[in-house]
Amino acid sequence: MAIGDELVTGQTVDTNSAWLAEQVRVRGARVRRLVVVGDDVEQIAGVFRQGLDQADWVIATGGLGPTADDLTRAGIARAIGVKLEESREALGRIEAFFERWQRPMPAGNRLQALLPGSCAVVPNPRGTAPGVWYRGPRSQLVALPGVPGEMKAMFADSVAASLGAAASGRVGVVRRVNTFGLPEAVVGEAIADLMVRARNPAVGTTASGGVISIRVVGAADSAAEAEALVAADVAEVRQRLGSVVFGDGDEALEHAVARLLMAAGKTVATAESCTGGLLAKTLTDVPGSSAYFIQGYITYSNRAKTALLGVPADLLELHGAVSGEVAEAMARGCRAAAGTDFALATTGIAGPDGGRPPERPVGLVYVALADAAGVRVERLLLGAHLSRAEIRDRAAKVARNMLRLSLLGWPAA
Amino acid sequence: MAIGDELVTGQTVDTNSAWLAEQVRVRGARVRRLVVVGDDVEQIAGVFRQGLDQADWVIATGGLGPTADDLTRAGIARAIGVKLEESREALGRIEAFFERWQRPMPAGNRLQALLPGSCAVVPNPRGTAPGVWYRGPRSQLVALPGVPGEMKAMFADSVAASLGAAASGRVGVVRRVNTFGLPEAVVGEAIADLMVRARNPAVGTTASGGVISIRVVGAADSAAEAEALVAADVAEVRQRLGSVVFGDGDEALEHAVARLLMAAGKTVATAESCTGGLLAKTLTDVPGSSAYFIQGYITYSNRAKTALLGVPADLLELHGAVSGEVAEAMARGCRAAAGTDFALATTGIAGPDGGRPPERPVGLVYVALADAAGVRVERLLLGAHLSRAEIRDRAAKVARNMLRLSLLGWPAA
Repeated sequence: MAIGDELVTGQTVDTNSAWLAEQVRVRGARVRRLVVVGDDVEQIAGVFRQGLDQADWVIATGGLGPTADDLTRAGIARAIGVKLEESREALGRIEAFFERWQRPMPAGNRLQALLPGSCAVVPNPRGTAPGVWYRGPRSQLVALPGVPGEMKAMFADSVAASLGAAASGRVGVVRRVNTFGLPEAVVGEAIADLMVRARNPAVGTTASGGVISIRVVGAADSAAEAEALVAADVAEVRQRLGSVVFGDGDEALEHAVARLLMAAGKTVATAESCTGGLLAKTLTDVPGSSAYFIQGYITYSNRAKTALLGVPADLLELHGAVSGEVAEAMARGCRAAAGTDFALATTGIAGPDGGRPPERPVGLVYVALADAAGVRVERLLLGAHLSRAEIRDRAAKVARNMLRLSLLGWPAA
Repeated sequence: MAIGDELVTGQTVDTNSAWLAEQVRVRGARVRRLVVVGDDVEQIAGVFRQGLDQADWVIATGGLGPTADDLTRAGIARAIGVKLEESREALGRIEAFFERWQRPMPAGNRLQALLPGSCAVVPNPRGTAPGVWYRGPRSQLVALPGVPGEMKAMFADSVAASLGAAASGRVGVVRRVNTFGLPEAVVGEAIADLMVRARNPAVGTTASGGVISIRVVGAADSAAEAEALVAADVAEVRQRLGSVVFGDGDEALEHAVARLLMAAGKTVATAESCTGGLLAKTLTDVPGSSAYFIQGYITYSNRAKTALLGVPADLLELHGAVSGEVAEAMARGCRAAAGTDFALATTGIAGPDGGRPPERPVGLVYVALADAAGVRVERLLLGAHLSRAEIRDRAAKVARNMLRLSLLGWPAA
C-alpha cells in the first residue's frame, strides 16, 4: 500500500510498491494486491482494515513525514482502534538523528514521534521518520516512509527477515524468457498447454514494444526445488520457441547481439536514415561496446547518403530513398567504409507525415544487413497504428535481430 | 485499477494508473484509489465489485490480450453476473485490423472478441484488444488494454468526454513549465513564495533526468477561470526563471531546439563518441527533423575520429580521446564535412568501466558546439553516482541545451 496525494493525482508514479512486491515474492510470500490512496485518514484506515482482514501482512509506504498531510500514523490508530501517543523511543531516535548531523530539530519533527499505541518503532537509519509495526492477533502491519532510500534500508534491516520466516515455507522463483519476431498470440499458441490455470509453475506472456516475454513462476518448499521446477519449464519454452528466444530476465536484443559479437570477435557499423541514431545508440548502450562497434553514420539527407556511403545518386532518383535498393546500397557502402564484418542500414518513413499510401505508407521501412556473403534486405510494414517513436524502435529492433540471427547462422530471409 | 501478474510481482512498474489519474483529475473528478491485482479472476472480480460499489467510475487497464492469462473480460463477467459471449462487433474490428495490415489472424485473437454480455465495445484504433464498457445502474466500468499507446488513444477517443461530462463541479487545469540547467533546490528558491501550501493554484517542482519541471495546478468553477489562474502563475514562473525555461507540458529540449532551428532556417550535424547516437536520435525524434538535421557521425574508435572528422592523430595521442581539444576538433571537422550551420560533438567516459580517477573519472564528458563564430567547449563532471545510461542522457541534454542557448543568442560559456 502506498500513501500520498501526489500518487493518486498522477503527479508521481509509485515505484516503491513494485520494489516491495519483488522483495516479498522472492521471500516466498504472494502479493495479493497493491493499493494507492491519498492523504485521507478515512481512506487510509479503510484500506488498512481491509488488508488486515484479508492478508497476513500489510506493508505501507508514505505518509510518515512531519507535516499535517502525513496521516499514516493516524490511519493506523483509527484502523486498530487506539490513540496516538508520543513514543519516547521514537522521539529519542529523531533527536539523535539531528544531533548526529549537528542541526537544530524543527518543531514539526516532534509530530513524527506520535505513534499509535501498542505499536513498535521501526528504526530509520537514514532519516527522521520512524516506521510503525503493528502486530495484530492474526495479521501484521508495517508502515515505512515513502522516500525510497529510507524505505529500502528499513525493509532490509528490520522487515525482510521476519517476513521471510513468516512466509509459510513456500519459496517462489520467477524467470523470464524474451522473444522477438512472433506475435503474442502465436507465442501463446506454441506454449498453450503450459499456460493452463492453477499449474505450478505458472506460465504467462507479456508484450512490450514487440518483445514477447514468457514468465515462469514456480513455488515449492525449498528454493532448490522451485528453481528446478522453473528451470524445466524454461528449457521447454526455449526448446519450443527456438531461435525467436534471444535472452532471459532483463536482457534486451542488444545484449544478445553484444554477447554473440564478442564471442565471435566480429565488428559492426551502422548507416541510419529513419532510425536517426537509435540503432547505434542501442548497440552502444552495452558497456564495453567499443569492442565491436566501430562507427556509425546518420544519413538523413540524400546528399549524405551519397557523400558518406556512396549510394549512387541515380539509384536514389530511380527508386527513392525509401527502397530496398537504397537500403542495400547503404549497408554495402557502410561496410566498405568502416571495414567491419557487418553493417546494418535502415531507411523508411517514421511519420507521422511523409507517407504516400498505398505504395509508401507511414511505417514502411527497409532494413539491410551486409556481411562477407552479401546483403539481405527486409521490408517492414509497421503500420500507422504505431507512433513515430514506436516505428523507429521496432525498425531498430528488427535490425538488431537480423544481426543476431545472422551470428547464429540463421539466414534472416 | 491495473491488472497483470507482472505488476503485482514487481516485474513491471504500473505507469498507466498515474497517467489515468492525471487525466481523470484534470476533468474535475477525484481519484479515490489505485489498485493493482494479478491475473486471478476472483481477485479481479472482487476489486471490480468493490469499485462499482464505492465509486462512480472504475477504469481498468490490462488483461485484455489474446492469451489464457488475460482474465479481465472474465473478471467483469463474474463481477456483474453475466456470461461471456462472442461480440460480432468486436470480432469484426479484430478481423478488420488484421485485414488492414494484410496479415493472417492467429486463432488466439478470436478470444479477444469474447466480451461480458450487456457490455459495449470500446474501439481500439491501434491494436486488436477491444475495450469493454459496462454501464451499471449506479456506476460505470471501463476496461482498456495495458499497452500504453493503445490505452491512451482509446481513453482520449472514447472515454475522456463522457468522464468529463459526468464529473460535476470544479474543473482542474494543470500546466507544466520545463527547465534545464539549474538544480531543483535553486529553482525551488526562485519560486518559493508560489509553493506555499493550500494556495490555488498549487505550484510544485519535480526533477527527472536533469530536467526540473514546475507544475501549476489550479481549480475553479469553470475551465476558463481555472485556465486564467494557471496562466498567470505560468507567466510569473517563466519571467523569474528566464532562459533556463525551455518549454511547456510534454515538450523536451529537442522540441525547443527544433522550433528554434526551423524558425531560423538553420541546420545541424552531430559527431558522437560517448553518446553513441543518442544525441542524433533525440534530435531526429521530432517529426519533420529532416528540415534541420543533415547528417551525423558516431566515431567510437580513434581511427573513425580521424578518418571521418579529420581529428589529427597526434592530437588524439597528445590529449587523449576524452579531452576538450578532441571535442573541439570533432565539432569543427563535423561542421566542415556536413556543411551545416552548427555541429555538436561529444566525447567522454560513460562507464561503468574505463575511468582513471582522479583526472579522468567515469562521468567526465566534453561537449562542443561549432558555429560560424568558432567552437565552444563545456567540460562536465557527471559523477559516478549516475549510471551509464544517465551519463549519456545528461551529456546529450547538455549538447541540445548549448545549441538552444546559442540559437537564443546566449553564449553558453
